[in-house]
Amino acid sequence: MITTDILIIGAGPTGLFTVFEAGLLKLKCHLIDALPQAGGQCTELYPKKPIYDIPAYPEILAGDLTDKLLEQCKQFEPGFTLGERAETIEKQEDGSFIVTTNKGTKHQAPVVAIAGGLGSFEPRKPLIHNITDFEDNGVEYMIKDPEFYRNKKVVIAGGGDSALDWSIFLSDVASEVTLIHRRNEFRGHLDSVEKVQELKNTGKINLITPAEVMGLVGDDKLEAVVVKQAKHIEKEYEVDCDHFIPLFGLSPKLGPIANWGLEIEKNAIKVDNSLDYQTNIPGIFAIGDVNTYPGKLKLILCGFHEATLMCQSAYQIINPGKRYVLKYTTVAGVNGFDGTRKQAPKAVVKAID
Amino acid sequence: MITTDILIIGAGPTGLFTVFEAGLLKLKCHLIDALPQAGGQCTELYPKKPIYDIPAYPEILAGDLTDKLLEQCKQFEPGFTLGERAETIEKQEDGSFIVTTNKGTKHQAPVVAIAGGLGSFEPRKPLIHNITDFEDNGVEYMIKDPEFYRNKKVVIAGGGDSALDWSIFLSDVASEVTLIHRRNEFRGHLDSVEKVQELKNTGKINLITPAEVMGLVGDDKLEAVVVKQAKHIEKEYEVDCDHFIPLFGLSPKLGPIANWGLEIEKNAIKVDNSLDYQTNIPGIFAIGDVNTYPGKLKLILCGFHEATLMCQSAYQIINPGKRYVLKYTTVAGVNGFDGTRKQAPKAVVKAID
Ligand SMILES: Cc1cc2nc3c(=O)[nH]c(=O)nc-3n(C[C@H](O)[C@H](O)[C@H](O)COP(=O)(O)OP(=O)(O)OC[C@H]3O[C@@H](n4cnc5c(N)ncnc54)[C@H](O)[C@@H]3O)c2cc1C
Ligand SMILES: Cc1cc2nc3c(=O)[nH]c(=O)nc-3n(C[C@H](O)[C@H](O)[C@H](O)COP(=O)(O)OP(=O)(O)OC[C@H]3O[C@@H](n4cnc5c(N)ncnc54)[C@H](O)[C@@H]3O)c2cc1C
Repeated sequence: MITTDILIIGAGPTGLFTVFEAGLLKLKCHLIDALPQAGGQCTELYPKKPIYDIPAYPEILAGDLTDKLLEQCKQFEPGFTLGERAETIEKQEDGSFIVTTNKGTKHQAPVVAIAGGLGSFEPRKPLIHNITDFEDNGVEYMIKDPEFYRNKKVVIAGGGDSALDWSIFLSDVASEVTLIHRRNEFRGHLDSVEKVQELKNTGKINLITPAEVMGLVGDDKLEAVVVKQAKHIEKEYEVDCDHFIPLFGLSPKLGPIANWGLEIEKNAIKVDNSLDYQTNIPGIFAIGDVNTYPGKLKLILCGFHEATLMCQSAYQIINPGKRYVLKYTTVAGVNGFDGTRKQAPKAVVKAID
Repeated sequence: MITTDILIIGAGPTGLFTVFEAGLLKLKCHLIDALPQAGGQCTELYPKKPIYDIPAYPEILAGDLTDKLLEQCKQFEPGFTLGERAETIEKQEDGSFIVTTNKGTKHQAPVVAIAGGLGSFEPRKPLIHNITDFEDNGVEYMIKDPEFYRNKKVVIAGGGDSALDWSIFLSDVASEVTLIHRRNEFRGHLDSVEKVQELKNTGKINLITPAEVMGLVGDDKLEAVVVKQAKHIEKEYEVDCDHFIPLFGLSPKLGPIANWGLEIEKNAIKVDNSLDYQTNIPGIFAIGDVNTYPGKLKLILCGFHEATLMCQSAYQIINPGKRYVLKYTTVAGVNGFDGTRKQAPKAVVKAID
């Protein structure tokens, strides 16, 4: 059982900034995310695109925003359960909650902050009749750890940035990379498309287009994919591989959280925005894109504010009756849980003679 | 008469970010500030100190934060009335407001956003019996434009960062700089104290300590200050000068805004935080440190959120009945009023052969 002060569901920008604000109040956080990495929509959907409305950043790439938020909260040593979806929640007699993931990992905390954005990112699966037989046995929809593919034969399917970028990355790791796409045209960053062209020319990526994977072959484990290519329209053929990774995009689904007894409106969780973004269940808060209230804007900067106010109420729940006096970071400094201390240089008092 | 869409009182971080958010909605802003420069508390009170809780900035100097906010909103061409205090407000028949400063400058707008922080920064004046006779006739409490002192004889009084930094700066501009302080010890950044020591040693700053200015001499214009120095306890003597600049700090006062008929609580303006941070007077909003509501935190990041939500309601007031659909800056880009356009690089669709 993983225990913490604030259990955060969703490691997007809102969840990450919550770790920092909670840390200032000496509260520890643990984050659960269905994705294999932190950053939410920013990392999954548009890491290389600029955002222009993060306050005091005239321009910042969504991926860099994630890195900055991770750097800012690092000193408060957040725990992570990645690649798992929060599935159920149970209220305990002592008022705390136990949240269990689809992989059975259990987490306990007095406060739960749902920062689930548009929902847990779930892969769009290709329509291959026997694909579920091979899930976690050669078929993966997300790449959690590229090292897993070292010296393996990998087939990637897809025509967007994920398919392009992972093909490029794995061409240095895997023993063989095959990229299969229904068209000759790929849609992505110019750099990525050009790089794949180059790797294809030098034989480091085996490209099959326009083509589709029609079936999977293997006993317990995947051994090959069955490919139908327009040029060979009459017959399908097999490509040997250890792994098949269809990268057709992930789409967010509110999913299991919709059944937690929370008041839901327009696919979002209703909260009390006049105070602390608490839901109808005391002790459970909803912040960032996942919540709704009159005038709600699904913007990153709003999640930051909501997280900050929410942490004040979390503090009261965890330290009942204790008075908290806000101190400016500039004045009080920041004491990391890892022993680091950040502090403004002090003014000197010095004679001039 | 200066006319604009949103008249912002206070050019601190909250006011500056309002310009950006309003600009995204194609609304123009004009800012009034009692200080001669933008940045509010950040620039006036701690420009060289680091802030640690600006989201995605593990550390940023308060002065740099101001620069970034100015850079971010520049494309929306804000107007500024600096060095003047907003004094009175009058509602017009057409629903708009006219705000007049202590210098008589008039501004008209359909929406007023009070982002006045802890109030208008007013100088702490030294107790010199005839000082008011010379105000704007040789006595200034803030330096608006250093060029004003070119080739003039200047006496500065004070022992903190402002007195130190302006003495250093003006030693290159004025024909003579005298720094007077009640003690031998100065309180400020080590760099500044050491620099003043050096300029004193090389004769570029004339230092008189421990000493006090007791009176001012001159007919219409200031001609000299009367100094009492501990070493010459028996007699006071005169130091010739064109300007006397006492820099004893500025302290914020809610001041005239307190008489505008707004609901005030604990020296702050009550707002409706369940919607748009509007005050009890429709069309007047209060955002940032100047407002209060249940759970209010006087933090910079909260002002950013409040400004953003407020702009949505301002849009409705200015464009009644027009529906606004939120577009992400990443997706829609940013169109500056100055003709600039920021835009994410588009993905390409390109064949690989
Ligand atoms: C193309 C694009 C451009 C954008 N441009 C801008 C912009 O310019 N400015 C701006 O402010 N915003 C922009 N946004 C919106 C911005 O990305 C979101 O507001 C922001 O990501 C919300 O952050 P969050 O942390 O609340 O949620 P998210 O970023 O959505 O993160 C939520 C995380 O929670 C996880 N999760 C949800 N449910 C579960 C569960 N049950 N178990 C485990 N994990 C779960 C998800 O997997 C996800 O990783 C843009 C969005 C897109 C798609
Ligand atoms: C030493 C110190 C350290 C701090 N550290 C932090 C920190 O680490 N993190 C954090 O989030 N916050 C910190 N703060 C607080 C932060 O500076 C404020 O929250 C922030 O400046 C508020 O911004 P604002 O724009 O709302 O108001 P302000 O910055 O106060 O700006 C308001 C402006 O309005 C002007 N004004 C007011 N009334 C009038 C009028 N009638 N006419 C003309 N002009 C007027 C004032 O002159 C002023 O320039 C700190 C503050 C101090 C003093």
